[in-house]
Amino acid sequence: MTRSRLEAFSDGVIAILITIMVLELRAPEGGEWSDLRPMLPTGLAYLLSFVIIAIYWNNHHHLLAAVERIDGRVLWANMHLLFWLSLVPFATAWMGEHHDESVPVEVYGLVFLGAGMAYFVLTRALLAIHPADSALARAIGRDWKGKVSVIAYALGIAAAFVSTWTALVAFVGVAVLWLVPDRRIHRVLASPPR
Amino acid sequence: MTRSRLEAFSDGVIAILITIMVLELRAPEGGEWSDLRPMLPTGLAYLLSFVIIAIYWNNHHHLLAAVERIDGRVLWANMHLLFWLSLVPFATAWMGEHHDESVPVEVYGLVFLGAGMAYFVLTRALLAIHPADSALARAIGRDWKGKVSVIAYALGIAAAFVSTWTALVAFVGVAVLWLVPDRRIHRVLASPPR
Amino acid sequence: MTRSRLEAFSDGVIAILITIMVLELRAPEGGEWSDLRPMLPTGLAYLLSFVIIAIYWNNHHHLLAAVERIDGRVLWANMHLLFWLSLVPFATAWMGEHHDESVPVEVYGLVFLGAGMAYFVLTRALLAIHPADSALARAIGRDWKGKVSVIAYALGIAAAFVSTWTALVAFVGVAVLWLVPDRRIHRVLASPPR
Amino acid sequence: MTRSRLEAFSDGVIAILITIMVLELRAPEGGEWSDLRPMLPTGLAYLLSFVIIAIYWNNHHHLLAAVERIDGRVLWANMHLLFWLSLVPFATAWMGEHHDESVPVEVYGLVFLGAGMAYFVLTRALLAIHPADSALARAIGRDWKGKVSVIAYALGIAAAFVSTWTALVAFVGVAVLWLVPDRRIHRVLASPPR
Repeated sequence: MTRSRLEAFSDGVIAILITIMVLELRAPEGGEWSDLRPMLPTGLAYLLSFVIIAIYWNNHHHLLAAVERIDGRVLWANMHLLFWLSLVPFATAWMGEHHDESVPVEVYGLVFLGAGMAYFVLTRALLAIHPADSALARAIGRDWKGKVSVIAYALGIAAAFVSTWTALVAFVGVAVLWLVPDRRIHRVLASPPR
Repeated sequence: MTRSRLEAFSDGVIAILITIMVLELRAPEGGEWSDLRPMLPTGLAYLLSFVIIAIYWNNHHHLLAAVERIDGRVLWANMHLLFWLSLVPFATAWMGEHHDESVPVEVYGLVFLGAGMAYFVLTRALLAIHPADSALARAIGRDWKGKVSVIAYALGIAAAFVSTWTALVAFVGVAVLWLVPDRRIHRVLASPPR
Repeated sequence: MTRSRLEAFSDGVIAILITIMVLELRAPEGGEWSDLRPMLPTGLAYLLSFVIIAIYWNNHHHLLAAVERIDGRVLWANMHLLFWLSLVPFATAWMGEHHDESVPVEVYGLVFLGAGMAYFVLTRALLAIHPADSALARAIGRDWKGKVSVIAYALGIAAAFVSTWTALVAFVGVAVLWLVPDRRIHRVLASPPR
Repeated sequence: MTRSRLEAFSDGVIAILITIMVLELRAPEGGEWSDLRPMLPTGLAYLLSFVIIAIYWNNHHHLLAAVERIDGRVLWANMHLLFWLSLVPFATAWMGEHHDESVPVEVYGLVFLGAGMAYFVLTRALLAIHPADSALARAIGRDWKGKVSVIAYALGIAAAFVSTWTALVAFVGVAVLWLVPDRRIHRVLASPPR
């Protein structure tokens, strides 16, 4: 019961976040193709954020599917993750309008760096109340993707001081890394669905 | 578990999309019937988009009710569908304000063309992991409505170069096509509810 | 399964509607009590709409709890109801800013007249697929409150041509009528909860 | 069934509230760190409101997990709580822009004073239909935190007439009070999860 309501609440927040970003895509004044041109950076920023949030939902989904119990610390670690994700629409809108300036790109990276670390903390809070041989512990494993993501965001933020495009490549790279399905968790969880 | 959370997330996103479109219906400055007149195109665009998204929810609902298992590809095919649907409020607002210009009408059609193809991809991803004689395979069948819809959207987009009204007739026609209940899926799924 | 997902989707839409209305309550420019004064009509309109939508959720909740099966017509009757409710934020914002003009008050009444009739249609669609002695049929009964509400909205709309205050009294009266718990449905459904 | 749908609806409303507040965080015009500076008060107000709403969700979650039955009064007591919470985005935005003026800080406190009292009323409505030795009754206990919170909000509102910072310290203090996990409820509910 407890776990399912945590899932439902997280699903609600993530579904809202992924959707309200679209409110930043304001219909242009004119009605020509050329009126869409200035929206391209905002549109691409939206696409990138959509994909990253979708990755978070996917990972969250797989993670919680292996969870056997939760406690108060897990609830708050989850809220902490949702807080960082809640800043994504703001960071996306700012970067979309200022993609060639370093600060908005750094802030974008910082928000996902925060989310990445919050996700890590959430896995630790879960591991602390599951036995070492649980499905969850095996599913999380060494979590190299999570660690690589955090490092890539940190490097991207540093790179943004010099080149915003290098930073964006790093952020897109993290998304691509996760789009490749995580066979390991998958295999462990290959139980009959539902 | 897995399937039910996919349904819950999709329901959340679709419910938000169908609802935030109404935020484009801004209360007019004046308080007379005549002040509502300029809102008519926006209002009708909202109504059309509401009906089309409702059709997607309906079909999604029927489709997933017959699903026995899902995998990572299905999760992403579903995200892909939700991405196209997430562009509907933007496309609706733009077309509502520029219904007599071809580009916004074409973009509106393109968004639903994308959604229609994403839905098709989702059904293929599901069929790939279900046996040929599963309830799902029988429910989807030849999916002539899905194919006709995609063709109608493509024709409508082409027609919009010449006449935006022809395009709108095509889009409305697709909605009407789906409003007629799909007896086939219905029959197959005529299991005791709940 | 089918019914629970219909409930989940309706809950999502109603939860969003009842919440996004608050986006119309814009923080005033100044920081004094007197700056809140001009917001009073908008605030009261928000309160009234919140209560009426809460009543719809309550009734919807009780209604569906007695449902044994649904079909495609029920899905669409439900969507029809949600459509009318989706217009409430618009109508509330307009009436809040123009509560002393007749047209916005009439439109407000028309939206709830539409919702009331859509709710009636939904109950008929449900009764058509339930036996006359079902818990649902007994729970709905003669539905005098639903009929009185529709009549009161129609009278309120007519009254708004002469006096907007009379109309508002009628709308508030309908809300009060429903706030008194419906002992009849309650009694029939007095099964052990959960 | 009844309880789970109440949970689902409350989760939906709370998830939306906690998320739409972020819409007040508008991307600044410029692209420098200095452009973020004026957003600091709004950002901190957002953080505080996020934490307080998260606390409400947490408490609501624990409370309902111990509930065995609900009735019409509970439904309305819950709606009453959601109404106060729905005013949080408005109060947060106003206070964020006017944190050094007393009235917006008082209104912020009043909204949470209202929510605190609504939560108290909800616990009474639940206790009225549960036996004195129920898990719920033991879990609620004397509810000293709830009482302290209401008193702290009232004192904070009074203090805001003299010093807005004293008021803010009181509001933050209530949040800290709740962030310390409530071991009592926890112990009573220490049943195997799910």
